[in-house]
Amino acid sequence: MSRVINFSPGPSTLPLPVLERAQRELLDFDGSGISMLEHSHRGAKYSAVHEEAKSLLKELVPVPDTHEILFMQGGATGQFALVPMNFLPAGKSADYINTGSWSKKAFAEAEIVGEPRWAGTGQVDGKFIRVPKQSDLELDSGAAYVHLTSNNTIAGTQFHTFPDTGSVPIVADMSSDFLWRPIDVSRFGLIYAGAQKNLGPAGITVVIARKDLLEAASTKVPKIFRYSFIAENNSLQNTAPTFTIYMVRNVLQWVKENGGASAMETRNQKKANMLYGCIDEHEGFYRCPVERESRSVMNVVFTLPSEELEKKFMADAAAEGMVNTKGHRSVGGIRISMYNAMGPQEIEKLTGFMKSFAQKNG
Amino acid sequence: MSRVINFSPGPSTLPLPVLERAQRELLDFDGSGISMLEHSHRGAKYSAVHEEAKSLLKELVPVPDTHEILFMQGGATGQFALVPMNFLPAGKSADYINTGSWSKKAFAEAEIVGEPRWAGTGQVDGKFIRVPKQSDLELDSGAAYVHLTSNNTIAGTQFHTFPDTGSVPIVADMSSDFLWRPIDVSRFGLIYAGAQKNLGPAGITVVIARKDLLEAASTKVPKIFRYSFIAENNSLQNTAPTFTIYMVRNVLQWVKENGGASAMETRNQKKANMLYGCIDEHEGFYRCPVERESRSVMNVVFTLPSEELEKKFMADAAAEGMVNTKGHRSVGGIRISMYNAMGPQEIEKLTGFMKSFAQKNG
Repeated sequence: MSRVINFSPGPSTLPLPVLERAQRELLDFDGSGISMLEHSHRGAKYSAVHEEAKSLLKELVPVPDTHEILFMQGGATGQFALVPMNFLPAGKSADYINTGSWSKKAFAEAEIVGEPRWAGTGQVDGKFIRVPKQSDLELDSGAAYVHLTSNNTIAGTQFHTFPDTGSVPIVADMSSDFLWRPIDVSRFGLIYAGAQKNLGPAGITVVIARKDLLEAASTKVPKIFRYSFIAENNSLQNTAPTFTIYMVRNVLQWVKENGGASAMETRNQKKANMLYGCIDEHEGFYRCPVERESRSVMNVVFTLPSEELEKKFMADAAAEGMVNTKGHRSVGGIRISMYNAMGPQEIEKLTGFMKSFAQKNG
Repeated sequence: MSRVINFSPGPSTLPLPVLERAQRELLDFDGSGISMLEHSHRGAKYSAVHEEAKSLLKELVPVPDTHEILFMQGGATGQFALVPMNFLPAGKSADYINTGSWSKKAFAEAEIVGEPRWAGTGQVDGKFIRVPKQSDLELDSGAAYVHLTSNNTIAGTQFHTFPDTGSVPIVADMSSDFLWRPIDVSRFGLIYAGAQKNLGPAGITVVIARKDLLEAASTKVPKIFRYSFIAENNSLQNTAPTFTIYMVRNVLQWVKENGGASAMETRNQKKANMLYGCIDEHEGFYRCPVERESRSVMNVVFTLPSEELEKKFMADAAAEGMVNTKGHRSVGGIRISMYNAMGPQEIEKLTGFMKSFAQKNG
C-alpha cells in the first residue's frame, strides 16, 4: 500500500524524509558498519547524535542557559509521578489545573505522593470545552508548583496564553503541543513532553527543567528518579534509548530545515484556520464543542448530526486514504490530529473531502 | 562501509535478518501505509505485534502461567529502584549478592528505599573473579527477597546454577544473559532484563514476575511504578515504545526460527568453548582472570602481557573489521561480548586472529 494520511493523536505521523533517512541508514550508520539500533550509548557515533539533539532543542525551542535539557524514559505518565516525588515536599501543597483526563491522571499520582489541590477547571456542565482563564483560577501563593496540561488531545482544548502564577513555578505537560511554536521557557519551572506527537517515535520524554529547582529537589527518592541525577549525567546515567533519540534528532533537523519553530507556528495556524474555517462554514453539519479561544491547533474535535453519519465520515475518509479520524471513546465524534509533521496540503485534501461530504449528506 | 563484527557489551549487535526486515518495513508496516514508528499503541496492527512478542517470550523462555510478562521503560537501572519500592516494606530487609558494579548499583538504590543487606560476594582480593557458591552465602530466611545479577558484563562472571534460597523469592537482573538458554522461571520471583543485549535495541525492559508477589506488593508508590498496575493494563497503561517492542518481537521470531532457547545454548556454548579454548591454549600470552566455574558465556574478559600489546590487539582487530574489543575502563584488558546474535563463524574469525596475533607478538 502507498502511504496514507494518518490523523492519529499519537504515536502519530512522522515527516516522510525523516523515515526515508532512517531507512537508508538502518544497516550502517554514518559509515560505521553498525546500525544506530546497535550503537553503544557510550560511543562517539551516538554521542554526536545525543549532543546534536540537545543543541537543536536549545536552538529551536529555544532553551535559555537557566534550564537543563533531559532525555528520560517512561512517558508523560512517568512524569506525573516524578514531578511530585521531586518537588512536592511534606507540608506543602501543589496546584493542579484541570483540563481533563491527563490533568486528572497527573493529579491522581500526586495524591499518592503528597497533597495536590485543584486550582481551577475547564469543565462546564460536565464537559471540558475550554481552558480556564486567569480569573477562573484560585491559586495558592504558597504552592510548591502549578501543574497544567498545555494541550488536551481528547477534548481538543489548548492554552494559548499561560496563567500568571507569581513566583510559583509552572510545571507543564506539553506532550501534545511541544514545539508547535517557539516557547518562552523562562516562564516555566519544568516542561515535559512525550516525543510521540511532535518530536519522534514513542519511547523518549524530553524534559526542560530550571536548574535552581533541580538543586532544591528531594534527595529521598531513588537516584534514577531524581531529575538532578539525570542532569548531572547528561541523561547518560544508564543506557539511553539510542535509536529513539536519533529519530528525535532527525525530526529536529527537519524542523530546522523547514524554518524552525516560527515556521511551524505559521504552518500550524494555516492548517487550523483551514480546518476550523471549514467546520464553521458548515455550522449546521459540523460542530466543534470547544470555545473559540480555547480551540486546539493540534487536535481538532467535531461532531456530525448523527453517530451514523460520523461512521460514514470515517469510512469514506479512509476510502480516500485518510485514516484514524475517530474521536476518543470518552467523547465520541471526529478528531483530527495534525502535529508539525502533518502538511497543509493534507488538511486541504481533508477539507475538500469534508465540503463534499457535507454537500452529499447535509 | 560494509558491516563490521561488533563485540560491544550493549547496546550490541542484532541479527542481520532482523535489521534487514526493519529496513524493508520502515515506511509501510504490513500494508498499512503507516510506519511502525508511527503506529498507535492502541491500534490493531501494533496490538498484534505486542501480543506476539508476549507469546513468543512465553514459549521461548519459557514462562509458566504463574508468572506475568511485562514490558517497561527505564532499563535495569529503573528496576534497581522499582524492586525495593514494590517489595521491600518497612521493617523487612532484603538480601543482595555482590558480583560487582551492577549489584552495587542495585544495592545503593535499595538503601534509599529500605534496608538491604549483603548476603555474599564474589570479590576475592578486591577483584570480582567469581560468583559466590552456596556455601559462600549467608542468607536471611526472613528477607523480603534475594537479589542477584545473573551475569556481570564488566568482570565476565556468570551464575551457571542459582542459589537455593528456600522460600525467599529470587529477584534476578538478567539484562546481559536473558534467553541465552532456557530459564527455569519457576525458581524466580522476578526477572528483569534490559533488551539491549540479547533481545533488541535499547529502550525496553522485559520483566517476568510471579503473580502472587505482585498482588502483595506495596500500594504506596505511584501507580506507574507498581508492577501490579502494569500487569493489569497488559503494559499498555500509557504509550508503549512501540517500535522497540516490534524489534524485540522480530528478534524473538529470529530466535524461534533458529531453534529456540536450547539451540541458543548450544550456539553460545560452542562460541564460549572456542574462545576460552583459544585463551587457555595460549596461557602465557592471553590470561582470563575469572575462575573457571564462573566464566561468563556472554562476556569474555582477558588480558595480554602488556597494555601496549592490548592496544595493538584492539587496533589490529579493528583493521580486520572486529570492533569494540576494549575491556571496561574499571578493569582494563580485552572484552569480547557475544550475545545470541553473534555467530560462531565470527568467533572463529576472532580466534583465528588471536592465534596469529599470539604467534607474531608472543
